[in-house]
Amino acid sequence: MMTTVADILKCVESIAPPYMKESWDNVGLLCGSRNTPVTKVLVALDPFEQVCREAADWGAELIVTHHPLIFQAPKSITDDTSVGRGIMLLCRHGISAINAHTNLDCTPGGVNDVLAVTLGLEHVQMTRPQGDPAYGLLRCGEVAEQSLECFLTTVKETLGCPGLRYVDGGKPVRKVAVGGGSCAGGMLEAMDAGCDTFVTADVKYNQFWDAQDLGINLIDAGHFYTENPTMPVLAAKLQAAFPGLEVKISENHRDCMKFY
Amino acid sequence: MMTTVADILKCVESIAPPYMKESWDNVGLLCGSRNTPVTKVLVALDPFEQVCREAADWGAELIVTHHPLIFQAPKSITDDTSVGRGIMLLCRHGISAINAHTNLDCTPGGVNDVLAVTLGLEHVQMTRPQGDPAYGLLRCGEVAEQSLECFLTTVKETLGCPGLRYVDGGKPVRKVAVGGGSCAGGMLEAMDAGCDTFVTADVKYNQFWDAQDLGINLIDAGHFYTENPTMPVLAAKLQAAFPGLEVKISENHRDCMKFY
Amino acid sequence: MMTTVADILKCVESIAPPYMKESWDNVGLLCGSRNTPVTKVLVALDPFEQVCREAADWGAELIVTHHPLIFQAPKSITDDTSVGRGIMLLCRHGISAINAHTNLDCTPGGVNDVLAVTLGLEHVQMTRPQGDPAYGLLRCGEVAEQSLECFLTTVKETLGCPGLRYVDGGKPVRKVAVGGGSCAGGMLEAMDAGCDTFVTADVKYNQFWDAQDLGINLIDAGHFYTENPTMPVLAAKLQAAFPGLEVKISENHRDCMKFY
Amino acid sequence: MMTTVADILKCVESIAPPYMKESWDNVGLLCGSRNTPVTKVLVALDPFEQVCREAADWGAELIVTHHPLIFQAPKSITDDTSVGRGIMLLCRHGISAINAHTNLDCTPGGVNDVLAVTLGLEHVQMTRPQGDPAYGLLRCGEVAEQSLECFLTTVKETLGCPGLRYVDGGKPVRKVAVGGGSCAGGMLEAMDAGCDTFVTADVKYNQFWDAQDLGINLIDAGHFYTENPTMPVLAAKLQAAFPGLEVKISENHRDCMKFY
Amino acid sequence: MMTTVADILKCVESIAPPYMKESWDNVGLLCGSRNTPVTKVLVALDPFEQVCREAADWGAELIVTHHPLIFQAPKSITDDTSVGRGIMLLCRHGISAINAHTNLDCTPGGVNDVLAVTLGLEHVQMTRPQGDPAYGLLRCGEVAEQSLECFLTTVKETLGCPGLRYVDGGKPVRKVAVGGGSCAGGMLEAMDAGCDTFVTADVKYNQFWDAQDLGINLIDAGHFYTENPTMPVLAAKLQAAFPGLEVKISENHRDCMKFY
Amino acid sequence: MMTTVADILKCVESIAPPYMKESWDNVGLLCGSRNTPVTKVLVALDPFEQVCREAADWGAELIVTHHPLIFQAPKSITDDTSVGRGIMLLCRHGISAINAHTNLDCTPGGVNDVLAVTLGLEHVQMTRPQGDPAYGLLRCGEVAEQSLECFLTTVKETLGCPGLRYVDGGKPVRKVAVGGGSCAGGMLEAMDAGCDTFVTADVKYNQFWDAQDLGINLIDAGHFYTENPTMPVLAAKLQAAFPGLEVKISENHRDCMKFY
Repeated sequence: MMTTVADILKCVESIAPPYMKESWDNVGLLCGSRNTPVTKVLVALDPFEQVCREAADWGAELIVTHHPLIFQAPKSITDDTSVGRGIMLLCRHGISAINAHTNLDCTPGGVNDVLAVTLGLEHVQMTRPQGDPAYGLLRCGEVAEQSLECFLTTVKETLGCPGLRYVDGGKPVRKVAVGGGSCAGGMLEAMDAGCDTFVTADVKYNQFWDAQDLGINLIDAGHFYTENPTMPVLAAKLQAAFPGLEVKISENHRDCMKFY
Repeated sequence: MMTTVADILKCVESIAPPYMKESWDNVGLLCGSRNTPVTKVLVALDPFEQVCREAADWGAELIVTHHPLIFQAPKSITDDTSVGRGIMLLCRHGISAINAHTNLDCTPGGVNDVLAVTLGLEHVQMTRPQGDPAYGLLRCGEVAEQSLECFLTTVKETLGCPGLRYVDGGKPVRKVAVGGGSCAGGMLEAMDAGCDTFVTADVKYNQFWDAQDLGINLIDAGHFYTENPTMPVLAAKLQAAFPGLEVKISENHRDCMKFY
Repeated sequence: MMTTVADILKCVESIAPPYMKESWDNVGLLCGSRNTPVTKVLVALDPFEQVCREAADWGAELIVTHHPLIFQAPKSITDDTSVGRGIMLLCRHGISAINAHTNLDCTPGGVNDVLAVTLGLEHVQMTRPQGDPAYGLLRCGEVAEQSLECFLTTVKETLGCPGLRYVDGGKPVRKVAVGGGSCAGGMLEAMDAGCDTFVTADVKYNQFWDAQDLGINLIDAGHFYTENPTMPVLAAKLQAAFPGLEVKISENHRDCMKFY
Repeated sequence: MMTTVADILKCVESIAPPYMKESWDNVGLLCGSRNTPVTKVLVALDPFEQVCREAADWGAELIVTHHPLIFQAPKSITDDTSVGRGIMLLCRHGISAINAHTNLDCTPGGVNDVLAVTLGLEHVQMTRPQGDPAYGLLRCGEVAEQSLECFLTTVKETLGCPGLRYVDGGKPVRKVAVGGGSCAGGMLEAMDAGCDTFVTADVKYNQFWDAQDLGINLIDAGHFYTENPTMPVLAAKLQAAFPGLEVKISENHRDCMKFY
Repeated sequence: MMTTVADILKCVESIAPPYMKESWDNVGLLCGSRNTPVTKVLVALDPFEQVCREAADWGAELIVTHHPLIFQAPKSITDDTSVGRGIMLLCRHGISAINAHTNLDCTPGGVNDVLAVTLGLEHVQMTRPQGDPAYGLLRCGEVAEQSLECFLTTVKETLGCPGLRYVDGGKPVRKVAVGGGSCAGGMLEAMDAGCDTFVTADVKYNQFWDAQDLGINLIDAGHFYTENPTMPVLAAKLQAAFPGLEVKISENHRDCMKFY
Repeated sequence: MMTTVADILKCVESIAPPYMKESWDNVGLLCGSRNTPVTKVLVALDPFEQVCREAADWGAELIVTHHPLIFQAPKSITDDTSVGRGIMLLCRHGISAINAHTNLDCTPGGVNDVLAVTLGLEHVQMTRPQGDPAYGLLRCGEVAEQSLECFLTTVKETLGCPGLRYVDGGKPVRKVAVGGGSCAGGMLEAMDAGCDTFVTADVKYNQFWDAQDLGINLIDAGHFYTENPTMPVLAAKLQAAFPGLEVKISENHRDCMKFY
């Protein structure tokens, strides 16, 4: 019996239940048809145009991504916009699109647990768990006490970042909070959890200064690099659930941003 | 040199300029690509699924409709909704979708002028012109004085309605306002223009009573039947502008609503 | 001891408790005085001007209606508006006005139960009950399986409609949802309840198409004809509760809308 | 030929044009019928229940007041509220109600000009004129330089106040701003106009302190006492315009508030 | 060990817990530093500029007031405004500012209990208690039945008012509601509690008329005079809690408003 | 005659008129007193706590900054927040604070003109001028055609950035738009002006991808490094206007953010 988009959606939603998402978010089946039989699944952080094209070239019937294909609901679907081009490309090739965004950030074993583990944190916990079973956005964990510089090396190497931006909060690194993507707004939550260090991305000028002011080490390791480590984990879970499928991580999607 | 979607959009916008639309409306190129070469254009009142399919079966690269393909901006494009099915079908076959809605209602020679002419009104005028050149929603015109029953026969026959719903305002018919589709909210405007009779559609209970209260004959001739006469006019204008194209009115789109 | 407006209000509120109303609705004593002694009560679907006049001519001290005398709160009470004329007429003759609107729709034994019974439905249930005791807007029930045409005949005859507007959803009639007045927005609720057919009123163009799209038979039997059957039931309940009163249904209030 | 409510409304609107009113205000014909013939007009500051009763007892067909009969648009007209009782009483006796409120405050020769003149101000001007011809809320004018105590005596005597509440701003009285009713919010406007003293009503605790802080003498002479002097002026204008009418100022309406 | 601002804040919050405040209110530490050692505390109804100066001149490190130093959050702190001048003066002298406003009104033993006791009410109760332990805004209590004039004398003498404004509701005084400051909006609550008389402040024209209409004696005894009696009580509680501090009530803060 | 804060404010407002600011911005005298005599002025990008302390230590009576001391209007001024600590420190030492923010960005010769000149752009223009004399946010100008890498070197060296983040839009650098601080939202405006390259700061993940999608080189050179070059220019203008003053740029304010 054929695996369908609906079957894989059900699996994705068991990994990252929709009720765990933020109220403003858009997750689930954002393009295509539940009944489409699936033989190949392309997994990628973003559903950008070149990812859609890679899926089409490979002959995939489904893409599974972290970021949503549609964020601002569009008044038209045309090739004037990159979102329109992506949707048209998917529809033309009969490819469906599923995503798990903030629900994947929050779920146990999701984006922030993977990030914590990748960075070698121990005794990892949610900083602010809710619900039963518990879920939540940020994770915190411990490392052997070390200098900030030493920890910066670890972050850069384990995540493969081309560069880091940071503020030195004036403390050695002992307890670290992590929030993949744009989580700098959780800085006080990280401090309340007793952390001396916070790894996130998309940090703005005033947020770096807030960190300086609060005395917390704040590291911007890049949106892509803090979230992409979850893609292999997600792909592996899908492959395990559907051994008959071909599940592949996008080969050409990497961060467009570079350091100089 | 090929005719493109952009060429036809330009023509549609010269017939029904976008600035004449209501602020809440959605018009123009709602799906597809400006650069697509066009050989066949299907014209229809609505971009419903079966119209999209007819376009695909016929090999059209473009549909031109009155009602918009997208009204509420969608958070997903899936076959769970009829709008999603329509968009997916169009994209799969590389068909673009253009529409002119309230701008076509308001433009000189548009929906309401066609309706007025179809009903045999003379000395047709806008009830509330604005701009220069003038445009506006409702039209009014004169008929030879006649009983309401006599005029009802004319309406039913000229528009081909299966039935009419009406209120007898207690006056003979001499000056008639028309507003194709859901225009009953313009009743006072029709009265202010000196009309004794108003032809529109989608009239609600309290609006029939308002007409009775105000002493105006109010006739609901059906949304489809008051707007569809404009489709051949629109098709003819496109054909005249692009003699090399095949322009056809949808053969299978008719009103789903029946009288008993 | 005299029966007062307050006594009858209490009875109406026991039949249709105010907490069952929609949040936007206006019900209860909308004009007059709780202490007025009552000998004659006129019952009608609407508190329109001619109903107020009928009450005055007959010498009633109270009208009890379904629709509210005041819907949009008025900034003035003048004879420039029909609402103002009605209020002035009532006040001039010392007549009070009570109504039960969406609470009467929702209450057990109210508008939609009466409509279901009138149409001969069996095993009548609320589609979406709430509260304890349960109340809710729509009702559904079963009929012997029959063609849509056959059921249309039943609707037209039992409700006395001058005509019906409908969409053929392509299914025989077996399970029917009913919602008197403007309830087409409940179409999905009717489908969720397993109904193949939905009887309501004030249906708009796009709602007929939604029904076609969803494959449900949708019948617009008229706002007046779907709600007016409840008036004799309401009058009888009031008469039973106050045997000493004269309770009468309006003799001249009928639908102003006609079919052609 | 009979004078009608419409004739008198037109006259009131020539005295106090509706476009001079504040956006939140409600003025004009708030109850009754434009076509009612009028022989007796009762003029009063407020359309309170006892004023309506006085009008009915006297046989007036019209009341003309400063404050509006309806301010918050009512969802019902019953004797549970004083507004409802007033409207019911007027309707029962076929009495119409006209008012001019903030338009009468602002118009040349209106409430604040009368107040300025009553207090003996000279070289009276609008503090912030707008439009052409000019209108505006506050008036300012000059008095012979005097002590605040001396001016307080003048205010109390000329307006007939039972008492005054005031703050001594520490300056002699030379230039005075006036705003009948609740105009303390115009304090800075009065200062900008170079005034050392401001006469208004309904002054609150923090506003007295603001005056102290700004060094302006602030006198609360009572809402009734600052506005009621305009009633004889208004009555005289109506009488002059309609010599055949009986125009009378309410005999029993006086302020309910007393000093101890 | 030194007493700090934080210690005194904790005490104030035990007297008037912050959760008892209205949602729009601003209470607690509004200026200064929790760690500042305190030896002198100035208590006053308002944190006006001259109170801040008195604190500075006396050498206080803290003022405790009823009204908040900051109500509308300021976009700048300059000497163009009295709030700015107050804040600058406090900061310059290192003085902190604590306040308890509507929480002090509502708490057992707070503003309204002190007012009730001062007026000699017996069997004092909250009119609308909430929470556990109970708190609430208004208080009501009984007096020996007496004429309104007699009670007016009591109010004026016990509160030391320069004058009263009132409406005679036409009833002898037996059960009295009190609400210090601007509480006239609670008039119906006072009536529901069975009160014939209501003592409050900042009463407006229409509220006096409402009282007349409802038949309740309404007395405006002044914002300052109804709330200031609580200041000695608050000062005594602070002194009792911190025997080593010098606690003093402001010597120069009195009402700026006078009667004439 | 002494120079006062008011004199310097007037000068700052002639350099950067307040009407040029964004509607949400807060500029001008945000702390202190217009009448304070000034002998020393400290100029800095930000009014952070250590800058306030530097001013106090140096004996300045005024700080002039780009970013506002108060952005979110505060409900309290305490040392719990860095804004509160800054205000308290300024007030304690009698130091006033003036700022020019988006008005300094937009004014001719302001932040973005300085940035353009610093980067060596020629034929510098506003991308979207408004008003007369013209002002506007972004600037664009030309450079000798060069590779992106070559231009990156120029940016890094002339601004003294510790690092850059960028997207390669696939074009050589010929026409460059600049917007100091968080101006990535102006990307389309930069493209409309014909620019191939855009230098700004605080760029987020999706904005880098938008740039890639649009084919524009986008360079994040840091909020501090793109705005701070204007501080010497501003200081020089103040010094020129007030030769008798000591005007100094903060010696210890530098960006807290570092690259790794």
